[in-house]
Amino acid sequence: MEKITKEKVEAFIPKRKRDSYKGTYGRVLFVGGNQNMGGAIMLSASAGLHSGAGLVTVATHSSNQAALHTRLPEAMFLPMEDLNQLEEKIDSMDVIVVGPGLGRDTLALNVLQTVYQTAGKDQLVLVDGDAIYLHVNEKLPETEASLIFTPHLGEWRTMTGLPLDEQYLETNQEKVKELNAVVVLKKSRTEVYYEEEVWQNTTGNPAMATGGMGDTLAGMIGGFVAQFDDNKKAVLSAVYLHSYIGDELAKTQYVTLPSHIIEKIPFTMKEFTKTAGKLSFI
Amino acid sequence: MEKITKEKVEAFIPKRKRDSYKGTYGRVLFVGGNQNMGGAIMLSASAGLHSGAGLVTVATHSSNQAALHTRLPEAMFLPMEDLNQLEEKIDSMDVIVVGPGLGRDTLALNVLQTVYQTAGKDQLVLVDGDAIYLHVNEKLPETEASLIFTPHLGEWRTMTGLPLDEQYLETNQEKVKELNAVVVLKKSRTEVYYEEEVWQNTTGNPAMATGGMGDTLAGMIGGFVAQFDDNKKAVLSAVYLHSYIGDELAKTQYVTLPSHIIEKIPFTMKEFTKTAGKLSFI
Amino acid sequence: MEKITKEKVEAFIPKRKRDSYKGTYGRVLFVGGNQNMGGAIMLSASAGLHSGAGLVTVATHSSNQAALHTRLPEAMFLPMEDLNQLEEKIDSMDVIVVGPGLGRDTLALNVLQTVYQTAGKDQLVLVDGDAIYLHVNEKLPETEASLIFTPHLGEWRTMTGLPLDEQYLETNQEKVKELNAVVVLKKSRTEVYYEEEVWQNTTGNPAMATGGMGDTLAGMIGGFVAQFDDNKKAVLSAVYLHSYIGDELAKTQYVTLPSHIIEKIPFTMKEFTKTAGKLSFI
Amino acid sequence: MEKITKEKVEAFIPKRKRDSYKGTYGRVLFVGGNQNMGGAIMLSASAGLHSGAGLVTVATHSSNQAALHTRLPEAMFLPMEDLNQLEEKIDSMDVIVVGPGLGRDTLALNVLQTVYQTAGKDQLVLVDGDAIYLHVNEKLPETEASLIFTPHLGEWRTMTGLPLDEQYLETNQEKVKELNAVVVLKKSRTEVYYEEEVWQNTTGNPAMATGGMGDTLAGMIGGFVAQFDDNKKAVLSAVYLHSYIGDELAKTQYVTLPSHIIEKIPFTMKEFTKTAGKLSFI
Repeated sequence: MEKITKEKVEAFIPKRKRDSYKGTYGRVLFVGGNQNMGGAIMLSASAGLHSGAGLVTVATHSSNQAALHTRLPEAMFLPMEDLNQLEEKIDSMDVIVVGPGLGRDTLALNVLQTVYQTAGKDQLVLVDGDAIYLHVNEKLPETEASLIFTPHLGEWRTMTGLPLDEQYLETNQEKVKELNAVVVLKKSRTEVYYEEEVWQNTTGNPAMATGGMGDTLAGMIGGFVAQFDDNKKAVLSAVYLHSYIGDELAKTQYVTLPSHIIEKIPFTMKEFTKTAGKLSFI
Repeated sequence: MEKITKEKVEAFIPKRKRDSYKGTYGRVLFVGGNQNMGGAIMLSASAGLHSGAGLVTVATHSSNQAALHTRLPEAMFLPMEDLNQLEEKIDSMDVIVVGPGLGRDTLALNVLQTVYQTAGKDQLVLVDGDAIYLHVNEKLPETEASLIFTPHLGEWRTMTGLPLDEQYLETNQEKVKELNAVVVLKKSRTEVYYEEEVWQNTTGNPAMATGGMGDTLAGMIGGFVAQFDDNKKAVLSAVYLHSYIGDELAKTQYVTLPSHIIEKIPFTMKEFTKTAGKLSFI
Repeated sequence: MEKITKEKVEAFIPKRKRDSYKGTYGRVLFVGGNQNMGGAIMLSASAGLHSGAGLVTVATHSSNQAALHTRLPEAMFLPMEDLNQLEEKIDSMDVIVVGPGLGRDTLALNVLQTVYQTAGKDQLVLVDGDAIYLHVNEKLPETEASLIFTPHLGEWRTMTGLPLDEQYLETNQEKVKELNAVVVLKKSRTEVYYEEEVWQNTTGNPAMATGGMGDTLAGMIGGFVAQFDDNKKAVLSAVYLHSYIGDELAKTQYVTLPSHIIEKIPFTMKEFTKTAGKLSFI
Repeated sequence: MEKITKEKVEAFIPKRKRDSYKGTYGRVLFVGGNQNMGGAIMLSASAGLHSGAGLVTVATHSSNQAALHTRLPEAMFLPMEDLNQLEEKIDSMDVIVVGPGLGRDTLALNVLQTVYQTAGKDQLVLVDGDAIYLHVNEKLPETEASLIFTPHLGEWRTMTGLPLDEQYLETNQEKVKELNAVVVLKKSRTEVYYEEEVWQNTTGNPAMATGGMGDTLAGMIGGFVAQFDDNKKAVLSAVYLHSYIGDELAKTQYVTLPSHIIEKIPFTMKEFTKTAGKLSFI
């Protein structure tokens, strides 16, 4: 099990190219936020935007349109109830983050089915929160897309049937192989299962134990995989930076809200590319 | 009558544990905010979140959904009009704060009745603002939950029948005993009646005399009792810190709005745990 | 014509009393904001709140409820279309600011009529923007309330029939006497006609020439008259401080938006009470 | 091809006159923002406001009213679906910015037709985003207004039929002459085609490659042409400053969101007028 460290992440974050444009940095669709949990997908999408994703669209319950545009004028909106529009939109996306605040009702299930059916083999689908619940408990079509799961310990137990005291590195790896997916196992020291490799995060603290933190991490991973050439480096960097920022904030805050973390992403990414003595642009 | 002092509050605020997660810090339901006073419950819930409550849900009039998600994406939403949903939600909560901006109409009464009926003996219900009015003036079912009341002087008079000039420590204590509840009596030097004890706050100033301050205090108390092992320490700390922050802000502000106070909570809590020479996490 | 100066305003701003509560600082109702101009009344009310008004209610078109609560959770909301609710609310108010974004249609007229009819002789009504237009062009009932008008030069011309080149101090004073009101005549050096006196402002700059500035000034005047014992000192202080803050901001900003000014009000008021070597609270 | 430099832009930005008022700085109408892309027109209008435009109105889909007033209380609102209201409003405007988030459906087309038909020869219409698409692909009436187009490279190709490798200065100039318009050709070093002249920007960086940047630039140009006496100086200054701010922010941010840029506009404009050793006001 390898450690994710500052030095490694500094080397992982790519330089932006002089002649790039917004399309260069990926199209990311965030899918979630029902009438009760609209904030979750807004946090997730905001994290993606602040991570540098080129173009962000949010498919969410239509009652969330006003709040979304108020908080995130940079994001485009899609009414989640309109499955045809959703299907069409998925086609042009690089990454789909599905689950934050999605809910577990019939609409949620239909939405997830649409994502699984429509996403193709060049696309990446990140499955988070309620989408993990639905993935485990409902009949879903096979998807051609590459999958990333971001369960916390309890969700991992229901995904694998492994009780907490049988969740060892090896048993986890076996289950990950069966899933044929990348797994980010969220815990006080988060683990990333990437193909044969297992990485352990070295940042994070209990001031981050508050609602919406998982949604924020999912958004950062989505934003990073959309931009980085290398998915592994993207996932590891997002996991590390999310908690690194949390650690920095915890020096002066008893609790750190997701929105506090999100605001800092562009600044911390910059620090990390500077520290490595690299030019920021090439 | 004991004084609430900085030294005591520094010792009251607990350290967060390394292996904790958001569930460790409590589930708090905020109930209030009709069509006219939606802002009140948003201030209250925001104070709870910034105080470190793990998971915050807001049951409010459905016309407040957009504003709630815009201001507080970290909070979940529940339409207050749907009493069945409310009842179901209450079951999984640790603390319920009811009253800010609730109103005094039939819906408000039905909502409060639902809270009283549903909350069980392991739950804590904080009764504030319009809920105090309804508690005094309407027929409400007995509740099994532990109660905290947060009246200002005028509300205390209607609760007890005691005119202002008969509100002595001893007469108040008698009434508190009858109520079988904790009472936070808001005045320029707020008093806390906790079982046999009476505590007096030593912070607060007239720059805080503005609408929404009481809602904010109620939210802080709710957030603290959800996290602290000891309810008395939680209530006393919230009362003290709310006005301590107000005092700090009043050094540079002629008036301090509730939202100014709320933003400072995580920072001031951190200062207080540092001052005591404690490690912040264990 | 006397000059409004820093020294005078420092002496005008009252100290807050230790035992005061929010009711001490006045109840202010802001009336305006139709479907097209909701922002105007929000700026006005926000200025009133940041000026220290104790309790702020906003009567505005019901389509503005969500935006109002998002921007100003400290304010209460009233649907402007409901004239009965409006009438009832006016009864308990100290000050009514009417006009910002009100519009000039039938609803606007009915609203203004309700304000004029309902406000009594112990109440103060500030007539701004579209309400000035309606006052001049429509048949309105006499009102018992004291009136403050805040016209700009063009509005003053239509109010008085005086062309710009006949607006001298003496001709203006005659018209003010006929109106039996206080007049704040907005120009690059704003003039205040208060009973027999005329005061001229000494602050202000062209970086403030942007939409919403007048609404902001109206809100500050409303907030100040609600708190100060002396209406004259309140009006003069608001006129001075509004532009004083604008001058301070213009040192680093090419243009200063109303929201920039509003945020600074509590801080500048504090500076002014400190400069005078006074204790802030008594 | 002349370079747009700091020294030139410092000389371009006009001083504000002491006796000016908001009407002096122009009336700008922003038209765009359908149900999916309301944020785009809000960014554009916000950029216009922060650039110093005197009065800003936004014609956008009615579902965007709440978000608009929350983000931008200084702006007036018009429901885009009401073509009669739109037509009437255009009459009193100096500048119309059309396109950001407009969409490409029948409503969008009708809106653009209304703008083209109604705008007269003393008015300036800036055609951006989806309005460029509609201009190329749909039958639109001739307009008497002066036109500014702000295409990116791909849009310029569809406007001109010139493949990327045939877009030389001379071929571009020919096409610009046919269009009888000003063209701002957005690329990593943006070019401005103004009558016989071609100017090249010297600022900009890949941290700005994110959604909404073009909307923001369009808003700045709109705000500048409304204020400056000289349209050429206005366009060149907006192009330069937009990316200059982006360069400043990129020193500490890996990615710079449009809202980050917008906040800085008033401060950077001030710096530029100071650097030139000029008084800011005359």
